[in-house]
Amino acid sequence: MRTLRIGLLGCGTVGGGFVRLLEQNRELIEQRAEARLEISRILVRDLGKERLGVDRSLLTTRVDEVVRNGADIIVELIGGTEPARTWIREAIFSRKHVVTANKQVLALAGGDLLELAAIHRVKVGFEASVCGAIPIIRALRDGLVANRVRAISGVLNGTCNYILTRMHEGAGFAEALAEAQVRGFAEADPTLDIDGEDAAQKISILASVAFGPFPRHWVRREGIRGVPRAPAGQVVRHVATARLADSIVELEAGPRLLPPDHPLAMVRGEQNAVTVETDAAGELTFYGAGAGSLPSASSVLADVVEIARDRI
Amino acid sequence: MRTLRIGLLGCGTVGGGFVRLLEQNRELIEQRAEARLEISRILVRDLGKERLGVDRSLLTTRVDEVVRNGADIIVELIGGTEPARTWIREAIFSRKHVVTANKQVLALAGGDLLELAAIHRVKVGFEASVCGAIPIIRALRDGLVANRVRAISGVLNGTCNYILTRMHEGAGFAEALAEAQVRGFAEADPTLDIDGEDAAQKISILASVAFGPFPRHWVRREGIRGVPRAPAGQVVRHVATARLADSIVELEAGPRLLPPDHPLAMVRGEQNAVTVETDAAGELTFYGAGAGSLPSASSVLADVVEIARDRI
Repeated sequence: MRTLRIGLLGCGTVGGGFVRLLEQNRELIEQRAEARLEISRILVRDLGKERLGVDRSLLTTRVDEVVRNGADIIVELIGGTEPARTWIREAIFSRKHVVTANKQVLALAGGDLLELAAIHRVKVGFEASVCGAIPIIRALRDGLVANRVRAISGVLNGTCNYILTRMHEGAGFAEALAEAQVRGFAEADPTLDIDGEDAAQKISILASVAFGPFPRHWVRREGIRGVPRAPAGQVVRHVATARLADSIVELEAGPRLLPPDHPLAMVRGEQNAVTVETDAAGELTFYGAGAGSLPSASSVLADVVEIARDRI
Repeated sequence: MRTLRIGLLGCGTVGGGFVRLLEQNRELIEQRAEARLEISRILVRDLGKERLGVDRSLLTTRVDEVVRNGADIIVELIGGTEPARTWIREAIFSRKHVVTANKQVLALAGGDLLELAAIHRVKVGFEASVCGAIPIIRALRDGLVANRVRAISGVLNGTCNYILTRMHEGAGFAEALAEAQVRGFAEADPTLDIDGEDAAQKISILASVAFGPFPRHWVRREGIRGVPRAPAGQVVRHVATARLADSIVELEAGPRLLPPDHPLAMVRGEQNAVTVETDAAGELTFYGAGAGSLPSASSVLADVVEIARDRI
């Protein structure tokens, strides 16, 4: 069995989950990948920080040690646009496959990076960038490959959904947000989540996969600050939508009032859901964990295994 | 672009849908498959029958003309155990890839056929055999590849679910069954559906994909004849389950009382749903069309495209 060397950029929530999940299910994953998966180096900011289950001898603070150290795949889990974008480009130029969970980079420069990867004949996997554990990129690209997608709608931001769920149960906005932060569903700076930017980035990535190069138009782009409670018998959800209308992809992200039996009204707490409307397969909805250490790591590893399988 | 020749066995509901969907979305599908997809021959019982959108010159009543006529892929959509099983074996012996929607053959002999295919280095795609348009086989095999599956539960039979939904709305069993037949959701002989055999075959296929060779034990295997109405505030669903318990896969199929906000209680009419419980990705639920001409054809074509892509 050949060995695939993985250079890991970042060892935070998702990066740490990646290391732990690979260790926990190594036998099963390697058997399915038909390859040994070896983490060759891990880029971190702080060498001294406690990291449970992580081999300290792999840690480095120098990115060149990770990218140039004989890795076959670079797994980028540092988030943010820079330096992630530069490092992904460098990895591709060095003919390394890339797996990333970075929605900011993909929403900003996904098209360029995929083109660059095609030129250099390497793959870029990004299942974990949208809807955590839900294999929605694969569903669009593989399972529904014979369909024209008409629209995609989703509850794509777990923080918003947690807050809206708690508000539905009677909490105030500030109280629900504080709770989300305590429970780890919201960042210390929750701006990107509650202002709708995170959901906008995610629907933009899904639209690229589903509709490709059609021109885009943002109809609405709102968060959940100051959202009023739903009238009795209805539910508020933060819904992001991409719809193909007359050869233009209309994008929208904002609070919506839904009847309680609507598929997206049923998403509770920090969960995510996506509905895909197609011409042949009809309407499908996928529910699951939208974030979190192991759920996101599950999708990152799915991309790593796919790359391993393809190279046989 | 190379050409992949498809020999089609059967041109009924799913087979006819396959021909129509390939015609309807040909440009898109061939671009994604990076191959031209040509139907080389179609096996039918009755040459004289009206078949909308099907090129009559492709029709034949002789299976050897389909299997031996230079096809690269055999798409088996005749259903039933024989002669389907023999023909699939012959196709594999002739080094042809196989795509099938045939749950009976797979539940009976799936393991043997997959072994035979591995020996002859051909692929067997069977996404359409379970849950119509829902890409559940791919989710288990690819998206959740890094996970240990703990359990799978699903509403896998659209006929049962249509009848139970209508009974919940006040109809009697016989009335609901007659309606399902009129609307095309139940066969003239609905025995396999309402006695739970169809759902049992499907959960058995899902269990093979998720748990592999663990020994199995049927705990219960019931249909919906004579099922009483649910007490107020609850819902009856026909649920099939596979659960790994102490290295044994426990299988179950039968009516279950569920609270109305249970993920499987929300499946209405002829829809299907599957919940997968995993160690890392948590719990995911997939909803969609469980049967029907184009939804099933969508999954058959997904397998054909996957085979086309892999052979590049």
